[in-house]
Amino acid sequence: MLIKEASLRTFTEQIFLKIGCSKQHAKLAADILLKSDLRGIDSHGVARLSGYVRLWEKKRINPTPNIQIVHETPTTATVDGDAGLGLVVAPFAMQVAIEKAEKYGSGWVSVRNSNHFGIAGYHALMAVEKDMIGFAMTNASPLVAPTFSNERMLGTNPMCYAFPAGKYPPLIVDMATSAAANGKLEIAQRAGKSVPEGWIQDENGDFTTDPHALKSGGSLLPLGSDREHGSHKGFGLSATVDILSAVLSGANYGPWVPPFVAYLDPAPNPVGTGIGHFLGAMRIDGFRPVNDFKHHLDNWIKRFKSANPIHPNQKVIIPGEPELEAERDRKVNGIPLVDAVAQDLNELAEKLGVEKLNEN
Amino acid sequence: MLIKEASLRTFTEQIFLKIGCSKQHAKLAADILLKSDLRGIDSHGVARLSGYVRLWEKKRINPTPNIQIVHETPTTATVDGDAGLGLVVAPFAMQVAIEKAEKYGSGWVSVRNSNHFGIAGYHALMAVEKDMIGFAMTNASPLVAPTFSNERMLGTNPMCYAFPAGKYPPLIVDMATSAAANGKLEIAQRAGKSVPEGWIQDENGDFTTDPHALKSGGSLLPLGSDREHGSHKGFGLSATVDILSAVLSGANYGPWVPPFVAYLDPAPNPVGTGIGHFLGAMRIDGFRPVNDFKHHLDNWIKRFKSANPIHPNQKVIIPGEPELEAERDRKVNGIPLVDAVAQDLNELAEKLGVEKLNEN
Repeated sequence: MLIKEASLRTFTEQIFLKIGCSKQHAKLAADILLKSDLRGIDSHGVARLSGYVRLWEKKRINPTPNIQIVHETPTTATVDGDAGLGLVVAPFAMQVAIEKAEKYGSGWVSVRNSNHFGIAGYHALMAVEKDMIGFAMTNASPLVAPTFSNERMLGTNPMCYAFPAGKYPPLIVDMATSAAANGKLEIAQRAGKSVPEGWIQDENGDFTTDPHALKSGGSLLPLGSDREHGSHKGFGLSATVDILSAVLSGANYGPWVPPFVAYLDPAPNPVGTGIGHFLGAMRIDGFRPVNDFKHHLDNWIKRFKSANPIHPNQKVIIPGEPELEAERDRKVNGIPLVDAVAQDLNELAEKLGVEKLNEN
Repeated sequence: MLIKEASLRTFTEQIFLKIGCSKQHAKLAADILLKSDLRGIDSHGVARLSGYVRLWEKKRINPTPNIQIVHETPTTATVDGDAGLGLVVAPFAMQVAIEKAEKYGSGWVSVRNSNHFGIAGYHALMAVEKDMIGFAMTNASPLVAPTFSNERMLGTNPMCYAFPAGKYPPLIVDMATSAAANGKLEIAQRAGKSVPEGWIQDENGDFTTDPHALKSGGSLLPLGSDREHGSHKGFGLSATVDILSAVLSGANYGPWVPPFVAYLDPAPNPVGTGIGHFLGAMRIDGFRPVNDFKHHLDNWIKRFKSANPIHPNQKVIIPGEPELEAERDRKVNGIPLVDAVAQDLNELAEKLGVEKLNEN
């Protein structure tokens, strides 16, 4: 099914309205999911909509949160998301970071008592639009085992760094700190295909190519896959995300992070509230004139695009480029939804009394 | 050869004095190299001393730099290192970041016109001592190829994040963004051993286990090793380090970064001055009370140390733990130097008129 952006946007807004979000919040939450679908990150777009609704049904998402700054200095703050959608809590926090950066050069916000915030890149790009460098991280449901362990202790904990360029689009590094994102595993599961060695391990801690291994005690592996190839580095990055997002804010961390799937209950002995994010913004002109920076970042991008390719038809890809290409295409041609997602959304529509998906 | 810390420290200070450093700078530079040797990071300690001296001989290191802030806001600054040793430029910049953090909650400094700064962890730990979170990054001589290329475009560009804990030692993530650090390759070269697949590629872009491949057009691989296992993430992290350190400050970036080895000349058409670093500090109490943070970081560490091990005799290692164990041992028992390094240092001593190494 191929669906136009505007049509899918309206549909998504209506679902959020139905669970009690304000118009402004419904619009914002839908914008983040649509941005993900437009950019080709299908795992984080409307495919997750029914997941958010199920968390609301379990009263784990508050549709009318009182999001507040609970502690601050001129350039740092802790925000309590009041169990709101991460899709509205994280933009609030990023706005705080941006305002602090406007006054003092930089702003940093750690967030507790939140939920899944969609794609990190959305939040980081809010800063880029103001000629700032944007940072966004979040912790997530424990699926990843640290090096030497077979216990799921960490989420796929993404980090995102985004930089404004001049004639080129922004350079955006937006990555799970695991070897492979969970979404890639789900694709292999649906397709009945095996996955490469180094993505996951079974319950004994041995590499496996069975994408279903997570259902029988297996776990995702940190970036680097094994100790010899640097999995302790992926573990270290994931730990950094967890500490900045949750130990710093007072959210849950490590194995205590509440699962995104509503059929799994949160840990009975929480060490904080909800999940945590960390957002930051730094003004480029706090370091050098914006035009000088953009000129040199353009030069950086140009030089890396022309790096000698191993295969003549596969040039170096600048971080953020494939997502932008997807966005250009899908804005015009529409967003493809796999059958399972379209069906899931239509069931949701029926349950909540919203008009079903419309291909036009 | 096993040498006492105090003896190696005095020796190193004398070498720096001989190339014209002030007493204060010689002491500081030696402290950083010794910290590296104490912590078991042999590749970044006194093993590099003759390398610094050769750069000074080529007039690429200025022993009496006028290190200055050239641009700033309340929480950001750009520092020009005046071609000084990174070992004195980076601590100056970190001190600026710490002072800004004391006043405004956080401080961020991008550095140009510098040289190799030793271990990133030294600088990040300066912030930890003040109950701040420390960040340190640097770009470096191009040895790493981006995903899909066989051209050396990036350094091993390390990132370091350091956090103060309570009863446990600080948690320090200090990692090259390549699959393996260059030092590990050098060890394999000396030992005549092959290296694991996934560390390096040959001039055609094929994996090789020959540690000498770098001498015949090969390159190091980013963390993740290949596209399937996330090398584009390692490339993205390395790009982030390069941009924050150099595009932001006005240093050289990518393939223009001047090589550490003095027998290779810098690029004839520089895009900036020297190499670049990026340093930052954030006050913990800008987010929550220090004791609360330390209590929860202790809890994080305790929980991760008790994660179920795959092999009963290999528990999860907390980032920074092995280095601290080495430091405890070497402070008491002395620092082991391999013959090649001891000989290199004694030749240096002879050349500069310093007393040779003394085992006591």
